[in-house]
Amino acid sequence: MIVKVKEPIEAEYKLIKPNQLLFTYFHFASEKELTFAMLESGAICIAYETVEKPDRSLPLLIPMSEVAGKMAVQEGTRFLEKPQGGKGLLMGGVPGVKPAKVLILGGGVVGSNAAIVAAGMGADVTIADISLPRMRYLSEVMPLNVKTLYSSTHNIEEELPTCDLVIGAVLIPGAKAPHLITRDMLKLLRKGTLMVDVAIDQGGCFETSHPTTHTEPQYTVDGIVHYCVANIPGAVPYTSTLALTNATFPYVVMLANKGWKQACKEDSSLALGLNIVNGKVTYPAVAHTFGLKYEAMSL
Amino acid sequence: MIVKVKEPIEAEYKLIKPNQLLFTYFHFASEKELTFAMLESGAICIAYETVEKPDRSLPLLIPMSEVAGKMAVQEGTRFLEKPQGGKGLLMGGVPGVKPAKVLILGGGVVGSNAAIVAAGMGADVTIADISLPRMRYLSEVMPLNVKTLYSSTHNIEEELPTCDLVIGAVLIPGAKAPHLITRDMLKLLRKGTLMVDVAIDQGGCFETSHPTTHTEPQYTVDGIVHYCVANIPGAVPYTSTLALTNATFPYVVMLANKGWKQACKEDSSLALGLNIVNGKVTYPAVAHTFGLKYEAMSL
Amino acid sequence: MIVKVKEPIEAEYKLIKPNQLLFTYFHFASEKELTFAMLESGAICIAYETVEKPDRSLPLLIPMSEVAGKMAVQEGTRFLEKPQGGKGLLMGGVPGVKPAKVLILGGGVVGSNAAIVAAGMGADVTIADISLPRMRYLSEVMPLNVKTLYSSTHNIEEELPTCDLVIGAVLIPGAKAPHLITRDMLKLLRKGTLMVDVAIDQGGCFETSHPTTHTEPQYTVDGIVHYCVANIPGAVPYTSTLALTNATFPYVVMLANKGWKQACKEDSSLALGLNIVNGKVTYPAVAHTFGLKYEAMSL
Amino acid sequence: MIVKVKEPIEAEYKLIKPNQLLFTYFHFASEKELTFAMLESGAICIAYETVEKPDRSLPLLIPMSEVAGKMAVQEGTRFLEKPQGGKGLLMGGVPGVKPAKVLILGGGVVGSNAAIVAAGMGADVTIADISLPRMRYLSEVMPLNVKTLYSSTHNIEEELPTCDLVIGAVLIPGAKAPHLITRDMLKLLRKGTLMVDVAIDQGGCFETSHPTTHTEPQYTVDGIVHYCVANIPGAVPYTSTLALTNATFPYVVMLANKGWKQACKEDSSLALGLNIVNGKVTYPAVAHTFGLKYEAMSL
Amino acid sequence: MIVKVKEPIEAEYKLIKPNQLLFTYFHFASEKELTFAMLESGAICIAYETVEKPDRSLPLLIPMSEVAGKMAVQEGTRFLEKPQGGKGLLMGGVPGVKPAKVLILGGGVVGSNAAIVAAGMGADVTIADISLPRMRYLSEVMPLNVKTLYSSTHNIEEELPTCDLVIGAVLIPGAKAPHLITRDMLKLLRKGTLMVDVAIDQGGCFETSHPTTHTEPQYTVDGIVHYCVANIPGAVPYTSTLALTNATFPYVVMLANKGWKQACKEDSSLALGLNIVNGKVTYPAVAHTFGLKYEAMSL
Amino acid sequence: MIVKVKEPIEAEYKLIKPNQLLFTYFHFASEKELTFAMLESGAICIAYETVEKPDRSLPLLIPMSEVAGKMAVQEGTRFLEKPQGGKGLLMGGVPGVKPAKVLILGGGVVGSNAAIVAAGMGADVTIADISLPRMRYLSEVMPLNVKTLYSSTHNIEEELPTCDLVIGAVLIPGAKAPHLITRDMLKLLRKGTLMVDVAIDQGGCFETSHPTTHTEPQYTVDGIVHYCVANIPGAVPYTSTLALTNATFPYVVMLANKGWKQACKEDSSLALGLNIVNGKVTYPAVAHTFGLKYEAMSL
Repeated sequence: MIVKVKEPIEAEYKLIKPNQLLFTYFHFASEKELTFAMLESGAICIAYETVEKPDRSLPLLIPMSEVAGKMAVQEGTRFLEKPQGGKGLLMGGVPGVKPAKVLILGGGVVGSNAAIVAAGMGADVTIADISLPRMRYLSEVMPLNVKTLYSSTHNIEEELPTCDLVIGAVLIPGAKAPHLITRDMLKLLRKGTLMVDVAIDQGGCFETSHPTTHTEPQYTVDGIVHYCVANIPGAVPYTSTLALTNATFPYVVMLANKGWKQACKEDSSLALGLNIVNGKVTYPAVAHTFGLKYEAMSL
Repeated sequence: MIVKVKEPIEAEYKLIKPNQLLFTYFHFASEKELTFAMLESGAICIAYETVEKPDRSLPLLIPMSEVAGKMAVQEGTRFLEKPQGGKGLLMGGVPGVKPAKVLILGGGVVGSNAAIVAAGMGADVTIADISLPRMRYLSEVMPLNVKTLYSSTHNIEEELPTCDLVIGAVLIPGAKAPHLITRDMLKLLRKGTLMVDVAIDQGGCFETSHPTTHTEPQYTVDGIVHYCVANIPGAVPYTSTLALTNATFPYVVMLANKGWKQACKEDSSLALGLNIVNGKVTYPAVAHTFGLKYEAMSL
Repeated sequence: MIVKVKEPIEAEYKLIKPNQLLFTYFHFASEKELTFAMLESGAICIAYETVEKPDRSLPLLIPMSEVAGKMAVQEGTRFLEKPQGGKGLLMGGVPGVKPAKVLILGGGVVGSNAAIVAAGMGADVTIADISLPRMRYLSEVMPLNVKTLYSSTHNIEEELPTCDLVIGAVLIPGAKAPHLITRDMLKLLRKGTLMVDVAIDQGGCFETSHPTTHTEPQYTVDGIVHYCVANIPGAVPYTSTLALTNATFPYVVMLANKGWKQACKEDSSLALGLNIVNGKVTYPAVAHTFGLKYEAMSL
Repeated sequence: MIVKVKEPIEAEYKLIKPNQLLFTYFHFASEKELTFAMLESGAICIAYETVEKPDRSLPLLIPMSEVAGKMAVQEGTRFLEKPQGGKGLLMGGVPGVKPAKVLILGGGVVGSNAAIVAAGMGADVTIADISLPRMRYLSEVMPLNVKTLYSSTHNIEEELPTCDLVIGAVLIPGAKAPHLITRDMLKLLRKGTLMVDVAIDQGGCFETSHPTTHTEPQYTVDGIVHYCVANIPGAVPYTSTLALTNATFPYVVMLANKGWKQACKEDSSLALGLNIVNGKVTYPAVAHTFGLKYEAMSL
Repeated sequence: MIVKVKEPIEAEYKLIKPNQLLFTYFHFASEKELTFAMLESGAICIAYETVEKPDRSLPLLIPMSEVAGKMAVQEGTRFLEKPQGGKGLLMGGVPGVKPAKVLILGGGVVGSNAAIVAAGMGADVTIADISLPRMRYLSEVMPLNVKTLYSSTHNIEEELPTCDLVIGAVLIPGAKAPHLITRDMLKLLRKGTLMVDVAIDQGGCFETSHPTTHTEPQYTVDGIVHYCVANIPGAVPYTSTLALTNATFPYVVMLANKGWKQACKEDSSLALGLNIVNGKVTYPAVAHTFGLKYEAMSL
Repeated sequence: MIVKVKEPIEAEYKLIKPNQLLFTYFHFASEKELTFAMLESGAICIAYETVEKPDRSLPLLIPMSEVAGKMAVQEGTRFLEKPQGGKGLLMGGVPGVKPAKVLILGGGVVGSNAAIVAAGMGADVTIADISLPRMRYLSEVMPLNVKTLYSSTHNIEEELPTCDLVIGAVLIPGAKAPHLITRDMLKLLRKGTLMVDVAIDQGGCFETSHPTTHTEPQYTVDGIVHYCVANIPGAVPYTSTLALTNATFPYVVMLANKGWKQACKEDSSLALGLNIVNGKVTYPAVAHTFGLKYEAMSL
């Protein structure tokens, strides 16, 4: 769920100078060329996606997850319309005609933001999760038309035949998303049902998902419509930019006022963002991915 | 839905004197003995159940319908418990376990009062009705976990297989309630499902309903539990008495201050309550039922 | 707001036989060719759009207005997204970033349905209307993020500069919609603001509106995006068909069981739907539009 | 609040083999015979009730507390009905007649679940607790008809005279519940008031409480009805079983895949569940209760 | 509840010319001097307060009642504060400390507006009324912390001892308000309780009420604080003026475009506003009050 | 935000004896005379305001912040009224007239309590804060008419021109509040706008704030009304006293039962309250302020 305004091209990599500070999304593990270009450049690369708070939350990913969760329903709503290839179903129904049934897999930031919008539109919403404490909290703060359900293959299979929209919002930090819906399970769904995979950046949580773009966002497998845009928040850059800046700005100020070394010394969350420093890989997972040497920063 | 503290016995009829004013529930059409006793007594009988406002509402029945609607859910909740013979299901579920699904046939006073309680307890509620204007209003004022559905055999049959509790709340003033669920349709329900028939006073809206009492409130047909207590509000006499008195009191004051004749002259709603006057039947439907002569009152 | 699955072509008109009963949307006043074809056919044409209840409500138009109102927000949400040509704004915002501001002109069926969806998505909604009783009711039943505002040119002009989405939902039954927003007023809006005109069937309530289709739904005037699809509910035929059928079905049953003459005799609302009968124009406005003779039906 | 489907009898204890793993509720401290039988059997006994998370929550008791809290209101509602021996009061009242007043002692899992159901039914609810942070949270997420009150003898005595239903939901983990309402205080209550003691498993939080069963759930002391069923969730086994399994299942999988020793080594919460291992008492409180030797497990 | 910017003085009366049209609040029945001055002037006086819709609502009084109802709570809140002479009570309480109890006599426009604000601030609100249909509607749309209670002396006396704020909002159109709380009943209230009498314009609904002004708004009788400002909306002229203008403007336009005669001919509601026309009293109640001749207008 | 019933005068200081335990608000850092008097007295001074929980919350300040937050809106409401010198604006508006716009700077205890009351009254509320996690939580539990906005000079300046009421609720524990609104920014506000500074105890969060009292609570700078009462909760002593006692009582009991030394030994939060002990300064900040020697307590 990264807002990339444009893809940097090779020539642009050359513009990066040694000791230059880059503070942005990198996702090195899935960007080999970028990784080596940055190593070569001698720059200091602090990656938004690995800045991490002591409570293990990822403060520079949350804003994008919030946007993506709400967008998942906006896009789901749209692709239930007939001219967009959907069933021709109105999300909220009207008096005498039932609303859409929405199943949201995962009750984290993405899932709860999706639920609040779908419920607000009048849909009949179920959030499936495996964390009971999280579901207890959601039960207390969500609108009454949101139900929670323990996420198991059995429970999901019971839900699928009556769903109109399934939103995949299961993210395991730093790991590939699990395939909660296999190709085989698609036949439990009614033809024309829509599946939106918000976890597509991490491989997707449906077996049949593959990344798409805002230009051609959806495709169909076995009669089931898939929406798997890799960069959902990119569709609402006005909101996304503000949301992201609200989160990054305090770090930017710190970096500007104190220099990256001192800033990272004082703020351990920020220090975890250091991925590449002067040609060295300072983040274990990146080193591991490319078989490079990991060199711990001493600040 | 009448609050009868005790059944009047024959000897008591004799205590009624000519010209004595009786203002209470009579339901003459289904009480032949009572009808003839009152005719013979020479009393003036104003029946709560036929007092009718210009907008066709029945002001002295509504309070009992409100109580009955809320009670229908209280009783439905109870008979879903295992020691009471039910499925062992908790109405509101808990986080991770879905709540009961409640289908309410009829969105009038009984149905909407049932819905508000069931929804408040956390159930997944559907009100089926044929009046679109009524469903539009309910959509605007009901909690978000209440859906409305146009009531048709097709729609009801689609709902039954997933219901845990069905509440029959369809009342056609002055007529037998229609059999919305036939014996044949019972097989669409899962075993142990509970059906509460609030329309039992008017014959019931399930084919398999027959009146029961608070002592033995439920019975089972084809594996489906039926609750058909004829006088549901009788279980909460404290509330029912206050509710009813709030409605009858202004009429009682009028009758006491002005005498029945003048009171009925000034208030056409009250006048419609006159069923028997000095040995004459003054309400067409009662006359029709027993083949007696109808004599219009001139006030 | 008519659901037309396909445009009848001239050849098809020929299939209509004398005395054949047609019960559907006709909108004769704006369909000259159709009017004359029907006159010639000798058919009986009962038009959905002129069936009218004693309280002046139009029971066969309301369901489409409900769908159109909710769709107006679904479409408005979509065209605020960047890839669809919008500002790139997320309807509901996220914590720390304000939601979209939505101004809805008209608080009738269309407007209140639009408001409930926009508010549910988290937008900051204002309904402008001239009926104080209607706004009082809406204040009582709408979510807290819906405000009401007396509709005047002054008040609208004060709102426009901060709006992100304007929904035109002002319908005057049987008349051209008034132009509440003139071309001149467009300059009060920020570039990229979206205007959805739900009144486009009746000429539109923005001066710069002209009908579009689901294929090319939007266009831009003076930097302001216009969405003016003439048949909005056509995008969700599954819901629209059920909604419409719920409303028409009781009339269809009546027509089938009693014949059109008897049915119209017994139901004065239905009788008002008679537009053309055996070559005669039986609805004044149609006769007036085409300078034909109006012949009152005697049933 | 334990779901015991049937009481194990002595003969069944014999079926337990050495090294057999038992993972269930034991409550050894109050089950002497069971304790010695298990010691003798040589089995490994992991008790649900002592599995404890680092934040001191008891993950395998919470689901039962949720069910018990909601059931407390269901049962309270029922025993306010006249045929069940109550006042004849409708929980939610009707327009013009006030609802029941419910006082809930304790705002933990049981109390807040009770409050949400009672409030949903329309009652006038007060939660008394001594934790201000907890009451602050409840104020933010509870419906508007739930008030919070600092729990002191003075405050409780001020509330009692106007209550219709008192729910005792004060649990002190591992200790006897305090007697918040003494026999002497009963005279502050109106005759026919109902008290439901959910803490009965731990001795009850009313002085006059003693355990009852679903067969004979209530009794009366000084005109006050007491409901003290020791195993409330047992009345809704369908829901209770799902709720409990959702919580135990991850542990069961761990135990099955890794064996109990490795599982307890990796998960310190689970390790706290070890009460008896191969004839030794490995949980201090159990050893203390029966004057046995406590032997710490080394994993 | 009239917004009088300044009191017209005698000299100003002289400025009124024959045939001049005056459209404003007059309240002639309680303004003898004004009545005779207007009769003498020969002007046409259309009084806001007697314009009346066919459903008997008073469209030009409602806006002021809405403002007055909300203001009643604002003022009630203020005079519960210690420096203003009150109990020193916070309307909404805080977690662990109960909110104020507010009793509102009358559930019409004033009462329901008062209730919505008091409930919004977190108070425990009871509306007492004698109209069951009105209380049913209020039950459906009011927040959950608003209860309804049938208004009788018995019920009011039961409420008084626990109230902190009593709002008198009982208006009988065209009649003196009834004294629902007599001087004798004051002793049921706790010292320092506040009573706000919104019906003071019509004599007040508390026996001990007498009109006060915004300069000295309150006084004390038997330890009970009374707030009886005769023109409550006058404290918020910005809002009051807009609210009133929204209601009067359509009539003003009609009068300006068509002249008063034609306007009154076409709009029977407006015609009822004619109180004095060219020296004649054209409104029965005014004529009756001063023993003048009533002359019906023929338009 | 301290409830001081009366200012202690010098003579009273003399009454304090050596070893006497004083447990109350002291605020030594801003009370030089008091500090030296207490040092001289030989008393043990435990200051409410420095008792601090491990999660850094200040349990004996929170109740006063809750009261102050709610009072800020009550006072803000009042000073928008004309007779109090305000704009003459009704907080909640009426149907057709928009409510007041309220900007709350700071979403902590004060700010969220202010928001809940303002929103409950129908205002259009924005909370500006810099903590995204806090704003996320507020989004989940606040009413729908509360928006959150990242607090930056740019964002505040964009809000000011349309605000009617600004509430300053930014508190930095132990530090002077920042001046979020400078004198220069006042010109962005419309004349007659009201600013309530709840942070006045810590210097105020508006540059133009200076402390006032309940006797003369407000003053005007550049046409903008300021309300800066230093002890807002003092206006509702009934509620404030209960709220504070609920928080202090458990500590009082502990001090009474165990003596201050043992109590502070067992409860590290309480120990942080020790400011002065037998003539020694035991709290660093106090020592620092007056250039005295800090002597750590060893318990």
